[in-house]
Amino acid sequence: MDFKITHNDTHTKARCGILTLERGTIETPIFMPVGTQASVKSLSPAELEECGAQIILSNSYHLYLRPGLDIIRLAGGLHKFMNWKKPILTDSGGYQIFSLAILRKIKDEGLEFQSHLDGSRHFLTPEDVVRVQEALGSDIMMPLDECVFYPVSFDEAQTALERTTLWALRSKKEWLKVKKGILFGIVQGSTYPELRKRSLAELLDIGFPGYAIGGLSVGEPADLRYNILNCTVDELPSTSPRYLMGVGLPQDILEAVSMGVDMFDCVVPTRYGRNGTAFTSQGKITVRNGEFSRDQSPLDAKCGCYCCLNFTRSYLRHLFNAGEILGLRLVSYHNIYFFLDMMKQARQAIREGRFKEFKENFGVQSR
Amino acid sequence: MDFKITHNDTHTKARCGILTLERGTIETPIFMPVGTQASVKSLSPAELEECGAQIILSNSYHLYLRPGLDIIRLAGGLHKFMNWKKPILTDSGGYQIFSLAILRKIKDEGLEFQSHLDGSRHFLTPEDVVRVQEALGSDIMMPLDECVFYPVSFDEAQTALERTTLWALRSKKEWLKVKKGILFGIVQGSTYPELRKRSLAELLDIGFPGYAIGGLSVGEPADLRYNILNCTVDELPSTSPRYLMGVGLPQDILEAVSMGVDMFDCVVPTRYGRNGTAFTSQGKITVRNGEFSRDQSPLDAKCGCYCCLNFTRSYLRHLFNAGEILGLRLVSYHNIYFFLDMMKQARQAIREGRFKEFKENFGVQSR
Repeated sequence: MDFKITHNDTHTKARCGILTLERGTIETPIFMPVGTQASVKSLSPAELEECGAQIILSNSYHLYLRPGLDIIRLAGGLHKFMNWKKPILTDSGGYQIFSLAILRKIKDEGLEFQSHLDGSRHFLTPEDVVRVQEALGSDIMMPLDECVFYPVSFDEAQTALERTTLWALRSKKEWLKVKKGILFGIVQGSTYPELRKRSLAELLDIGFPGYAIGGLSVGEPADLRYNILNCTVDELPSTSPRYLMGVGLPQDILEAVSMGVDMFDCVVPTRYGRNGTAFTSQGKITVRNGEFSRDQSPLDAKCGCYCCLNFTRSYLRHLFNAGEILGLRLVSYHNIYFFLDMMKQARQAIREGRFKEFKENFGVQSR
Repeated sequence: MDFKITHNDTHTKARCGILTLERGTIETPIFMPVGTQASVKSLSPAELEECGAQIILSNSYHLYLRPGLDIIRLAGGLHKFMNWKKPILTDSGGYQIFSLAILRKIKDEGLEFQSHLDGSRHFLTPEDVVRVQEALGSDIMMPLDECVFYPVSFDEAQTALERTTLWALRSKKEWLKVKKGILFGIVQGSTYPELRKRSLAELLDIGFPGYAIGGLSVGEPADLRYNILNCTVDELPSTSPRYLMGVGLPQDILEAVSMGVDMFDCVVPTRYGRNGTAFTSQGKITVRNGEFSRDQSPLDAKCGCYCCLNFTRSYLRHLFNAGEILGLRLVSYHNIYFFLDMMKQARQAIREGRFKEFKENFGVQSR
């Protein structure tokens, strides 16, 4: 792995970088479309390329349970299984075990849980999770961490943090045996600045090529989130890529970019797309609403995607109204394009030292 | 409209032709993908082009009810509404009024029914139905007909036939005022050869540029269907295009081609695709079945479609198992490609005087 900062913005802490991985080069700041179950919902790999995706995200927990590692190994790894040739970042699945599975027991050794699909029992150690990601052929792995939601007491957050550090160390040791892809560290500590600081210091001791900020967007108020994020990012080494996990809406992403975050993922573009909500340069619109039934304009007149170049809101509204799959496909496609194009514009704005203005104008339009 | 027979097969009554319409030229025999609600389910217009679609079918009844004609008129017609530039054949909706709507009253004047969507009351005359298709901008219109299902008594079939002829005449008169696109006649008469003969004779008196065979594949045994079809096709003028409505499976289509039918439509490729069943050169496979979970081969090793060139059965099975939309998209795409490619191969076989052999081999493989 190689990461080079190519530009620093003049008025914010935003920066542009080039992250070089074995399977491809990623321009940061970047948005990573989410393909939880080895598919970015409703889109083909060819369409992701059209939209300009440079890296996508997938999920160890989901793939471990279904289709299972032996099937993905048979295919020669996740890239071949789903026919995606560029880099893939895999989440450890920690978040899913805490939010989706039936969690039976948290031990220092690992997590005992039951599958949300069939109730089957599983036990995963941090070492197992590295091996799972090795089997997937992940380009960027995430270590197993203990996730807490909001609100959580200081003591609980501290206990989770200590375990997260312990697991990060064990993950790193396991990764050193594997030496495939790269392994990021995940900063936890809930909304307690001193815990965030401690988490980060301990991760830096272990040493990772990149750092993720976990445990945000889990129910906390926005101002608290921005505050914690800002403090945390400031403490991260400036030479490493910084990844804010699971965030978010366009404004949240641009705000975090201005604080110096480099990488993002979120299910928002496809989830909103499936429900008929499109992101546009003029704000969100719910295209399934009756008000668009006669609207002859595209979703976004400023957008150059296949959907906007070829279809009207009136047609898209009809597709949703009639329950036609093409509707959710087209709006999901547009939303992914929109997010990736926003990041492209953001990079350009950073290079030209006008990111602050860009972010503020984008905000006004899309509120 | 212009229709030229370019080749007659040596050992069967199959023929190749060129049907020239304002919006494009169609090589026959042809399969028309069905876009009932202004969308061929799950596929984009660009994908239909990739698959080699030359003409698609849509449905007057469905579009009349939803989104309604004023919305399609606003877009400048159905082609612009759905962004499909090649020809569209529209069914009259008669079949849907008899099978889907709540039918209130059949009068000589027209059909009184309630929408299957919201129970709203409607009355449509044959003249209205021509005007509906004019508003859609249909390239090939179908007249309103009275559909009967199987089994039906001779007397009932005769009454329906008489009304169908009456309506065909009125449709033709209305079309002469409109003179947009072309209007086909529809031969009815259920499974009674003398009624089929009479229907055809009466339609020939009125005179149409093409003839459809309706009222088959409505529950009758296959041998009876082939028998009626064969007699009917033999009576049709050889210089006009012949369209067998709503049929069907690959073997049924090839059988009908061998009798001299030129045009086909059916929901089978997309309906089966959504349910995870793929047509292949080796027969149908239900890719959602567990037996394919480790299968590293494409749906059809002989197929050149995007799905077969890029994805394994194992991956497709996972997508269906995990409820991912991409699965039904890819199998629907493959099936449409497969049907259109089968017709292309059939045309080539006819041109080379080896259609009988082609049909028989295709049959053995895909049973």
